[in-house]
Amino acid sequence: MCRWLAYSGTPVLLDDVLYRPQHSLIDQSLHARMGVETTNGDGFGIGWYAWHLRTPAVIRDTGPAWSNRNLREIADHVRSSLFFAHVRASTGTTVQQTNCHPFRHGRWLWMHNGAISGFHDLRRDLMLTVDPALFPALEGTTDSEVMFHVALTFGLDGDPPGAVARMAGLVERLGHEQGVPQPLQMTVAVTDGERIWFFRYSSGRDSRSLYYSSRVDDVRALHPDLAFLRHVSEETRLVVSEPLGDLPGVWNAVPESSYGVIQPGQDQLLRDFEPEPV
Amino acid sequence: MCRWLAYSGTPVLLDDVLYRPQHSLIDQSLHARMGVETTNGDGFGIGWYAWHLRTPAVIRDTGPAWSNRNLREIADHVRSSLFFAHVRASTGTTVQQTNCHPFRHGRWLWMHNGAISGFHDLRRDLMLTVDPALFPALEGTTDSEVMFHVALTFGLDGDPPGAVARMAGLVERLGHEQGVPQPLQMTVAVTDGERIWFFRYSSGRDSRSLYYSSRVDDVRALHPDLAFLRHVSEETRLVVSEPLGDLPGVWNAVPESSYGVIQPGQDQLLRDFEPEPV
Amino acid sequence: MCRWLAYSGTPVLLDDVLYRPQHSLIDQSLHARMGVETTNGDGFGIGWYAWHLRTPAVIRDTGPAWSNRNLREIADHVRSSLFFAHVRASTGTTVQQTNCHPFRHGRWLWMHNGAISGFHDLRRDLMLTVDPALFPALEGTTDSEVMFHVALTFGLDGDPPGAVARMAGLVERLGHEQGVPQPLQMTVAVTDGERIWFFRYSSGRDSRSLYYSSRVDDVRALHPDLAFLRHVSEETRLVVSEPLGDLPGVWNAVPESSYGVIQPGQDQLLRDFEPEPV
Amino acid sequence: MCRWLAYSGTPVLLDDVLYRPQHSLIDQSLHARMGVETTNGDGFGIGWYAWHLRTPAVIRDTGPAWSNRNLREIADHVRSSLFFAHVRASTGTTVQQTNCHPFRHGRWLWMHNGAISGFHDLRRDLMLTVDPALFPALEGTTDSEVMFHVALTFGLDGDPPGAVARMAGLVERLGHEQGVPQPLQMTVAVTDGERIWFFRYSSGRDSRSLYYSSRVDDVRALHPDLAFLRHVSEETRLVVSEPLGDLPGVWNAVPESSYGVIQPGQDQLLRDFEPEPV
Repeated sequence: MCRWLAYSGTPVLLDDVLYRPQHSLIDQSLHARMGVETTNGDGFGIGWYAWHLRTPAVIRDTGPAWSNRNLREIADHVRSSLFFAHVRASTGTTVQQTNCHPFRHGRWLWMHNGAISGFHDLRRDLMLTVDPALFPALEGTTDSEVMFHVALTFGLDGDPPGAVARMAGLVERLGHEQGVPQPLQMTVAVTDGERIWFFRYSSGRDSRSLYYSSRVDDVRALHPDLAFLRHVSEETRLVVSEPLGDLPGVWNAVPESSYGVIQPGQDQLLRDFEPEPV
Repeated sequence: MCRWLAYSGTPVLLDDVLYRPQHSLIDQSLHARMGVETTNGDGFGIGWYAWHLRTPAVIRDTGPAWSNRNLREIADHVRSSLFFAHVRASTGTTVQQTNCHPFRHGRWLWMHNGAISGFHDLRRDLMLTVDPALFPALEGTTDSEVMFHVALTFGLDGDPPGAVARMAGLVERLGHEQGVPQPLQMTVAVTDGERIWFFRYSSGRDSRSLYYSSRVDDVRALHPDLAFLRHVSEETRLVVSEPLGDLPGVWNAVPESSYGVIQPGQDQLLRDFEPEPV
Repeated sequence: MCRWLAYSGTPVLLDDVLYRPQHSLIDQSLHARMGVETTNGDGFGIGWYAWHLRTPAVIRDTGPAWSNRNLREIADHVRSSLFFAHVRASTGTTVQQTNCHPFRHGRWLWMHNGAISGFHDLRRDLMLTVDPALFPALEGTTDSEVMFHVALTFGLDGDPPGAVARMAGLVERLGHEQGVPQPLQMTVAVTDGERIWFFRYSSGRDSRSLYYSSRVDDVRALHPDLAFLRHVSEETRLVVSEPLGDLPGVWNAVPESSYGVIQPGQDQLLRDFEPEPV
Repeated sequence: MCRWLAYSGTPVLLDDVLYRPQHSLIDQSLHARMGVETTNGDGFGIGWYAWHLRTPAVIRDTGPAWSNRNLREIADHVRSSLFFAHVRASTGTTVQQTNCHPFRHGRWLWMHNGAISGFHDLRRDLMLTVDPALFPALEGTTDSEVMFHVALTFGLDGDPPGAVARMAGLVERLGHEQGVPQPLQMTVAVTDGERIWFFRYSSGRDSRSLYYSSRVDDVRALHPDLAFLRHVSEETRLVVSEPLGDLPGVWNAVPESSYGVIQPGQDQLLRDFEPEPV
């Protein structure tokens, strides 16, 4: 299991979101509250979009986030208006940089919390589904990376919700063929640098936790003393595996089997998500 | 805070002691039960004596022990009759190989759980106490490494309990001079490859936990089904930061402010320990 | 390109072979003399058989061998009668532990110097050839690991020269289908812990360098002052990417397109090697 | 020995300076042309000033620069108008992050190529010279870090050339007291984020190589086709251990025992440097 965070809004120093909150993602790397594994010390990654470039930067490393000095430096010196961050708890897969999230393809970033049950047996068939032109980009051994490349193969670039639904449908089918009763468990975030799509789904309908933040003006009304909110626009939004801190009125659970879109203008909150048979 | 383990007895595969027990040291690296920090993921180390060599091998690395493949390989393929193992939870000091335990000097190994309060301010004076001939050997930034070299300076080679008492006395004096009310918190193990001395002491007399195993024949009588015990001699003994597993009758708390010696023949269990003014 | 070394003979401290020779493998990691890349700093690995166990230990890490302290410790404290060592120069593939040699499967070890031309395009087809039961063991992204698993699929366990010939034949065929004129360049060593098979072959018949050591009694007659030779049996043999030191009469080039077997009793030096069409 | 680079001028993507030039610093990490060690694979570091912050960011890691993906990412996505970069060849000192350059203190950065002869014996006395208030900031074991903190102790903040001269004078005196004939060998760069001071000095007057770039308009006249020069101001300047590429008229050797200052307005090129007795 893992913990992740997606930010979109007013450009901020990554530190403001990654380290400063009371129960920050970095704190969650050491002491997560929700989920089975409370320690997410098997690597980490951040991906951010710089104002002047289309392709995001991705920094990943294998040690725990909580003690990584380079992550601390980047958080203290880099601003961004859209970034992903992820702390990893391996469920047995090798701890190596190429297994750390987020994964990148062109301008796209992908990160995942969850697992494909029986991935050991499904991996080969899933990899074979990946477009041969994308195959050389598979560098690691995680289910997450393969899920991303299957979604890319299934049209992520044009229709993210559809591509993720087809990817989920394939996992369900292959899993069932192998006798896995509940093959998929996922919360996923994916972005093209402008919009963020986030998904909460599992075969057993008991998905890992996922939350999105309330509208900034609503939070500001509830907590007028929050310094951070004075400097961010109404458009600012966070999606997180578990709440940063305990403030009431800030965090809203994403319902089971649903997805949302954070985008310029009105966000899309929320729609049903169902795997699409393939 | 950290967790450590010292083994002396019948040569065993390190795996039998490091990984196999129910609540093993490797398990404690992820989920310690006692102590403030429950995660000891800031590096690890093992030191072992090979039959044909006087100087021990020391393997240390900066990532968590629980996911380290090289540690797993060594544990699976190396036998030893005397070894130390340590998993580290940094209290702010850099995570780097030279800050990992055990520390070595010639045939000596040293490992520590605890801290010098106000070490930031005491470090310089403690380092100045170190014999200039030993000074170049200081490679890291931990209190533990400096404590070892102060003890070496104070005669560890000839009189381990006396040297450790003088080291503790110096820490107490320097701490009090700086206005630190309770400067020292330590459980320490030190060995020359034949005998293991272990110490439990803190200025405030509330030292971190420390346990030693009961005589093998007593444990065997209580737990006749333990496979491990069938192959080890009566002389076999473990000292650990916290018990490996929950078996009753196996683990004995080391009393506050005391020390013991594990050695060929009758072990010395236990004597009072008091810092010696210097 | 990489450099490697295979040792079989009287049990020695790894240090005697890895570090002590004049132009040792560790020296070659920094300054190789032969081959295109003179620096082999993209990771390393050693695999050794311990007397009491069937499966070899494998230690691999991503930094340069020349500065790795843990490698130095193992070399100083571990003895073995059969071991492999490898220093890596990546030709673009990720520097990660799972891309370091030797690779292991059960009691087998495999290491490689060379490359499959156009591997980027051949990787998928080669991976598909791997027995689905072996597929989950593919952890990295090197041609070398895939070559090993293809050879395992083609019967390495029963007939190493045949399996390697069929693997080479497959690479040749797939390469030619993709329009790669000279698909394969390899020097390979493979062992089951008792025998070592070594191969020198390339499509263009200009394979990377490979040498085997002369009979110990012949070397002893030439160089009666070599301390190392006093303690090793007549059976002792080394195969290396490039000679350790400049002593005349010690090193014999393995001819192009040939292979040999080092084994208890008479070694098999040398036979022709040709890819077998598949 | 090491290789380093200091840049000041028009904000550029780090990539334009670190990777793109013909014989770039990253290329020098693998194949330096000048100096004793041709491989600088024992760690690296970069320090840059972001427009909105006073204190520079510092990223350091222990592996070779040439294969480090995170360095590649930062170079591809971070712009700066003043940055330092360093690739390290250890002369025996531990390869660890805290031994990598540049070193930082507040808004200051320091990097060094060279060595103190007999540092093993001088280290203690040099460390004792460091202001006790700065002592806790000593994290590594290099001569370079101690030189920086001695210079800070001797007034770097107010008078960089004087402080460096006094630091050099102390090294000379302590060295001679220990019987070291030529204690110091250094090329140093230091900056406060606005000005860069660079020094070339050695006791034996045979200092390691150091070059500064010609005025941009002069280079542009010589090489009108250089794309990079079209986008940078007249003020842009580089100081490097060895030239990036072979273009005539671009690089000027810094004379033995001299220093310069790169600053807004007219740069100071060059003045004599002599150690100042202390």
